[in-house]
Amino acid sequence: MIAEQTLTEHYQRIRTHSETICRGLETEDYVVQPVVDVSPPKWHLGHTTWFWETFVLIPHLPGYKIFHDDFSYVFNSYYETVGKRVLRTDRGNLSRPTVAGVYAYRAYVDEHMSRFLTHADISTELHALITLGLNHEQQHQELLITDIKYILGHNPLLPAIDMPVTEHQAQPVSAPVSISEGIYTIGYQGHGFCFDNELELHKVYLNETTMAGNLVINAEYLAFIEAGGYQNFRYWLSDGWAWVQANGIQAPLYWHRIKGAWWNYTFDGLKPVDVEVPVCHVSQYEADAFARWKDQRLPTEFEWEVAAIGSGRDQLNWRTRWEWTNSAYLPYPGFTTAEGAVGEYNGKFMSGQIVLRGASVATPEGHARPTYRNFFQPDKRWQFTGIRLAS
Amino acid sequence: MIAEQTLTEHYQRIRTHSETICRGLETEDYVVQPVVDVSPPKWHLGHTTWFWETFVLIPHLPGYKIFHDDFSYVFNSYYETVGKRVLRTDRGNLSRPTVAGVYAYRAYVDEHMSRFLTHADISTELHALITLGLNHEQQHQELLITDIKYILGHNPLLPAIDMPVTEHQAQPVSAPVSISEGIYTIGYQGHGFCFDNELELHKVYLNETTMAGNLVINAEYLAFIEAGGYQNFRYWLSDGWAWVQANGIQAPLYWHRIKGAWWNYTFDGLKPVDVEVPVCHVSQYEADAFARWKDQRLPTEFEWEVAAIGSGRDQLNWRTRWEWTNSAYLPYPGFTTAEGAVGEYNGKFMSGQIVLRGASVATPEGHARPTYRNFFQPDKRWQFTGIRLAS
Amino acid sequence: MIAEQTLTEHYQRIRTHSETICRGLETEDYVVQPVVDVSPPKWHLGHTTWFWETFVLIPHLPGYKIFHDDFSYVFNSYYETVGKRVLRTDRGNLSRPTVAGVYAYRAYVDEHMSRFLTHADISTELHALITLGLNHEQQHQELLITDIKYILGHNPLLPAIDMPVTEHQAQPVSAPVSISEGIYTIGYQGHGFCFDNELELHKVYLNETTMAGNLVINAEYLAFIEAGGYQNFRYWLSDGWAWVQANGIQAPLYWHRIKGAWWNYTFDGLKPVDVEVPVCHVSQYEADAFARWKDQRLPTEFEWEVAAIGSGRDQLNWRTRWEWTNSAYLPYPGFTTAEGAVGEYNGKFMSGQIVLRGASVATPEGHARPTYRNFFQPDKRWQFTGIRLAS
Amino acid sequence: MIAEQTLTEHYQRIRTHSETICRGLETEDYVVQPVVDVSPPKWHLGHTTWFWETFVLIPHLPGYKIFHDDFSYVFNSYYETVGKRVLRTDRGNLSRPTVAGVYAYRAYVDEHMSRFLTHADISTELHALITLGLNHEQQHQELLITDIKYILGHNPLLPAIDMPVTEHQAQPVSAPVSISEGIYTIGYQGHGFCFDNELELHKVYLNETTMAGNLVINAEYLAFIEAGGYQNFRYWLSDGWAWVQANGIQAPLYWHRIKGAWWNYTFDGLKPVDVEVPVCHVSQYEADAFARWKDQRLPTEFEWEVAAIGSGRDQLNWRTRWEWTNSAYLPYPGFTTAEGAVGEYNGKFMSGQIVLRGASVATPEGHARPTYRNFFQPDKRWQFTGIRLAS
Repeated sequence: MIAEQTLTEHYQRIRTHSETICRGLETEDYVVQPVVDVSPPKWHLGHTTWFWETFVLIPHLPGYKIFHDDFSYVFNSYYETVGKRVLRTDRGNLSRPTVAGVYAYRAYVDEHMSRFLTHADISTELHALITLGLNHEQQHQELLITDIKYILGHNPLLPAIDMPVTEHQAQPVSAPVSISEGIYTIGYQGHGFCFDNELELHKVYLNETTMAGNLVINAEYLAFIEAGGYQNFRYWLSDGWAWVQANGIQAPLYWHRIKGAWWNYTFDGLKPVDVEVPVCHVSQYEADAFARWKDQRLPTEFEWEVAAIGSGRDQLNWRTRWEWTNSAYLPYPGFTTAEGAVGEYNGKFMSGQIVLRGASVATPEGHARPTYRNFFQPDKRWQFTGIRLAS
Repeated sequence: MIAEQTLTEHYQRIRTHSETICRGLETEDYVVQPVVDVSPPKWHLGHTTWFWETFVLIPHLPGYKIFHDDFSYVFNSYYETVGKRVLRTDRGNLSRPTVAGVYAYRAYVDEHMSRFLTHADISTELHALITLGLNHEQQHQELLITDIKYILGHNPLLPAIDMPVTEHQAQPVSAPVSISEGIYTIGYQGHGFCFDNELELHKVYLNETTMAGNLVINAEYLAFIEAGGYQNFRYWLSDGWAWVQANGIQAPLYWHRIKGAWWNYTFDGLKPVDVEVPVCHVSQYEADAFARWKDQRLPTEFEWEVAAIGSGRDQLNWRTRWEWTNSAYLPYPGFTTAEGAVGEYNGKFMSGQIVLRGASVATPEGHARPTYRNFFQPDKRWQFTGIRLAS
Repeated sequence: MIAEQTLTEHYQRIRTHSETICRGLETEDYVVQPVVDVSPPKWHLGHTTWFWETFVLIPHLPGYKIFHDDFSYVFNSYYETVGKRVLRTDRGNLSRPTVAGVYAYRAYVDEHMSRFLTHADISTELHALITLGLNHEQQHQELLITDIKYILGHNPLLPAIDMPVTEHQAQPVSAPVSISEGIYTIGYQGHGFCFDNELELHKVYLNETTMAGNLVINAEYLAFIEAGGYQNFRYWLSDGWAWVQANGIQAPLYWHRIKGAWWNYTFDGLKPVDVEVPVCHVSQYEADAFARWKDQRLPTEFEWEVAAIGSGRDQLNWRTRWEWTNSAYLPYPGFTTAEGAVGEYNGKFMSGQIVLRGASVATPEGHARPTYRNFFQPDKRWQFTGIRLAS
Repeated sequence: MIAEQTLTEHYQRIRTHSETICRGLETEDYVVQPVVDVSPPKWHLGHTTWFWETFVLIPHLPGYKIFHDDFSYVFNSYYETVGKRVLRTDRGNLSRPTVAGVYAYRAYVDEHMSRFLTHADISTELHALITLGLNHEQQHQELLITDIKYILGHNPLLPAIDMPVTEHQAQPVSAPVSISEGIYTIGYQGHGFCFDNELELHKVYLNETTMAGNLVINAEYLAFIEAGGYQNFRYWLSDGWAWVQANGIQAPLYWHRIKGAWWNYTFDGLKPVDVEVPVCHVSQYEADAFARWKDQRLPTEFEWEVAAIGSGRDQLNWRTRWEWTNSAYLPYPGFTTAEGAVGEYNGKFMSGQIVLRGASVATPEGHARPTYRNFFQPDKRWQFTGIRLAS
């Protein structure tokens, strides 16, 4: 367990990082919600704050006075247990509370949290809850970055923005990683924090597999486009083909074809596609179709975990893209959920979603581990998602 | 024709009023678009400015340099002639240009317009175009007010705002106005500005009619609600009943039933319904159903115009609510549209809409006349609409 | 008033005609509902029978035993007064009652009706109701024809069918009809049957107008297509242009472009478009756009009625196409609706619809008159609709 | 391999069974499509015939003359390779070809197939294709039964029908089946037919598990309903809860609450719910929620397969309900698809679907095996689906 002093510092550092991400935003950028998957930045800032107020301060800090009645209504999320939630689609219609109001809310809660963390006798249970809250805030930090990119990347002005993310860099050449056939243990085995979905430890039987040392790069993906990959149903899952047709998909998200050349919206504005860089912002449908075109396949989440942990120096080189697997997001054997609202955390999403493994350039430091299970529907691509092949 | 000096002053006064309406807004309030009919306030401020730049400065001020290429893309409206328009539904997704950017755009265009109006030799045609632009801006001033009310009135905080509108006041008792059977001339006959849809002068034959001297007030409308008016299909047009059912309509827009009492969102916040005040924010379906429940009917636009112009002191008392008629919005005999983009103005909306006559508390001074034809689809009710009965 | 003997014959003749229309159908053709506006033929046959059972036999024939409980649920229409209606979209999902069952229902009701009409003492009120029922059945006869055409014309086999309709014949050349400026009386003035919407008699003031003697023919409409009429927003009402874009409209309904030539589905199967024949199956949006392209306009329903009644030999030649007007479907001054379910007949549709005047090749004999007001939404075109220009 | 003589007989027996299923239908019942998942019975009869014509007769029977050009357009299914398919939603709009036409098509193809099977020299490849075709027809036989039930079970007359299915019978008491921890081999190991998705053989590691010997019965499911299971979000996956809310789900499909008692539509008409019988027509969402309410879970498809094959007499008692697993439908390691249209068979659906194991009362004889992988989206419940618990 981290000492109390350290916990306060840890809290402050993570809370500050959420605001650092937003340092380049105009007030207006905090407000809009162009699609239902994207939340307005001010909502993220308010919602993470609401978590601390609702689950820590109200139940544990005697005499705590809530900041504003309406905020708990507006910034509640998917938690069915706690009051009536705002419909997700409504978030972008709310001009109030203002951005200044949200920052005041953060300051108020942070002040009380700091005092609480310094003076309170933090039980083991409470410590676990606070750690969960910090990881929750880190998850929203990644979403803040991807949602801001979506908001600005769908604005006709395609503005550049100061963002603490190095989006595009080539990867060093890495050798493939092989797994030999046999039994492996899956799940988080350390002593630190992990989410409930990384537990319980269990065994799986894997066949011999080789995984690419490098992620698929833009040059390779361009070859798929130029070979008519988006026009040939044979490469696509049935749902994927329907998605391509219904949405007129012809390239990764943020790519624009201008006078015969491919351009790419980044936090630096519109730039020519850099062919050396790992492809980004593809759906699982696209990842799967690309793999089929290459006569290869996506790895399972278990293959990925085994290869990422590796043996000796033979490990995957990861951390720039979330990597689509071909595993549905399902409970590990023996999975159970905690009681109460916090227990709603992950389990109820175990339907219709695909596991992504790894981490991305937008993942906060200290928030990545080889057993981490990220998950999205297979058509989603506003995260920093990429492709690693297996065979 | 107004003298050039006066035209500049007129321009400045009207342009300033658009900004006066927004004086109480937070930056965030300028940005959101809760439904497709409502435009973000910053869009109104930008679009009206775009009108001056596109139709006056670019073609008529030699050497004029446009403020920003993207603005003409973003702030173009329904005019198919001029470039590719932004889909209406997208307006609320745009955080950029910022509000400050829009005000800078206004300042830049106003400065050039002032110089132009002062120094240029304004032809009759150009004078007419400028007058059209001023009336266009006034139309958007009313929309600014109603859209701001919608944005704040659908925010869970229901905030009060400083707004130059006296929303609610009781009306003096007025005697009914009778029209005798016969031929009347319809259309604008003055020497000032009117829209193309108020022309040509033509004759209509009207039967004997009596129109209520007063608008229907909240007390009367409450009686309709309490009599089960929203539950009985007999009072409703087929489309109206489908609208009631599909949307769960039970009262005028902005009314809330809280612990057995009716409350009403106004620019002063949530207030008890004032029974003496004319009912507001009703659709034509509701107006028509109320009239049928009363065994009366809505007037035609011709009856209204004749009664509003009146004879001697026997005139309608109007100007607080737009008044739903039972007339479809159709061209007058001999109606023609002007060439070019400005000619798209009104004619192409002559399908599926209903004429409203009068003016409302949100109508700018100098923008009302008895021949004015406002028009909306019959389900719309975010304007300050009311009911006058005829029989 | 028609003598009782004659009434029975009249009843039998009209009832038989409904079945004659269906003589060429396969059982399967009676069942499907490709779009919501089209009802399955067996529904029309059942619904018209339900009218007689519900409004005549049950209330007026002592001891009448209803044919089957479920039929009144299934074949009820839009009448909110009488029980819970089936959602319109559901009609095409119902395989039962079978076609044979519906014909048995018809036979049962016809037998009781014949006995009733022969023996009962028919009051004036009842006589009026029966006459309404016969006209109701005739309305459904026209819909039977147009709905069958839609069903077969949207089947990939495009089958021919034996149908008592001469769809396509050239019109004799007719001179234009002029109306001089002045006051005219509108509404049904005879002693026979008319619908409630043709009453009350009232005066209108018309300007001088000339109406084309002939309907627009396919040759003229082809010229509009070839001139890019469907690609140029300038000719279209705003709603019409949105309809063209959303539905990819490029020609009248049932037209197919095959290897550079235009073909047309008719009851004789797929045939080359006959250029001499009046254009058919156009929406009001198309009619209006065509007129604007010609620098002319659609007549109002009042102009049409005056020209159709005419003076001496100077009359419109009509009866092959329903003719779109530019009049919204609204009540005549003094219009009132009857009490009870029958009173729901026409009045409640007086919103969002356009008046068509005339009659079509599908209109049953004896069901046309110059004061008849047909009405549909402006995008509808599965009726035999055409275009007459005015100026 | 089955001898050629036997193959002909086998073909004839299976083809006849498709028609036997339809023996109780009225012509109208063959035509309708109440929802997109349900195909009209005549479509199934035509589509299975089209398979034989397209994949066997046209390529392999010299001089074969196709029955009708339009049929291959109308009865093509999801195969993107072969021509332009009819949109699934359109199937219920097609009155032609008629039912008699479809039966003539069957007779024509069957006659040619019988001659072909008797006289041709059937290669191993062709034999495999024919066997695939027979299994394809059997799959559609089950769909025929479930689609007919849906069509009649959504008709307000709720008609009974003669159908070769014993829908409801109580199950003998069976003891739970336990699996011990360890490595198991999964996949089809016999010498007969299996689908591509049952291959390749591969090992999995399973934990110790106990599976219920009996399926959940209506009495138990009623207890879940009465305990408020459909009102408490805690038991539901997030997608499942959204599905319950959006569709107002309150009981299994075909259940009706009438005057306080639960009734159930069956092929015998509307009957009281039989509490002893395994619950039927539940979605995976419902199965999962029920399991969670019981503090148990659904088995994985691997646990199910191992328990169904069993050891000695310790096997699952299955074959009356398709049993929902908690396994996503994904490829086995090493899975490959065949070339050409037939290769589209299963692989492309490996996204967004859940595996069901077992068989149902509607499964044709000879079409069930413990390795069979059925699959549907988790909200589907018109198949004969049930619940088996594991822990």
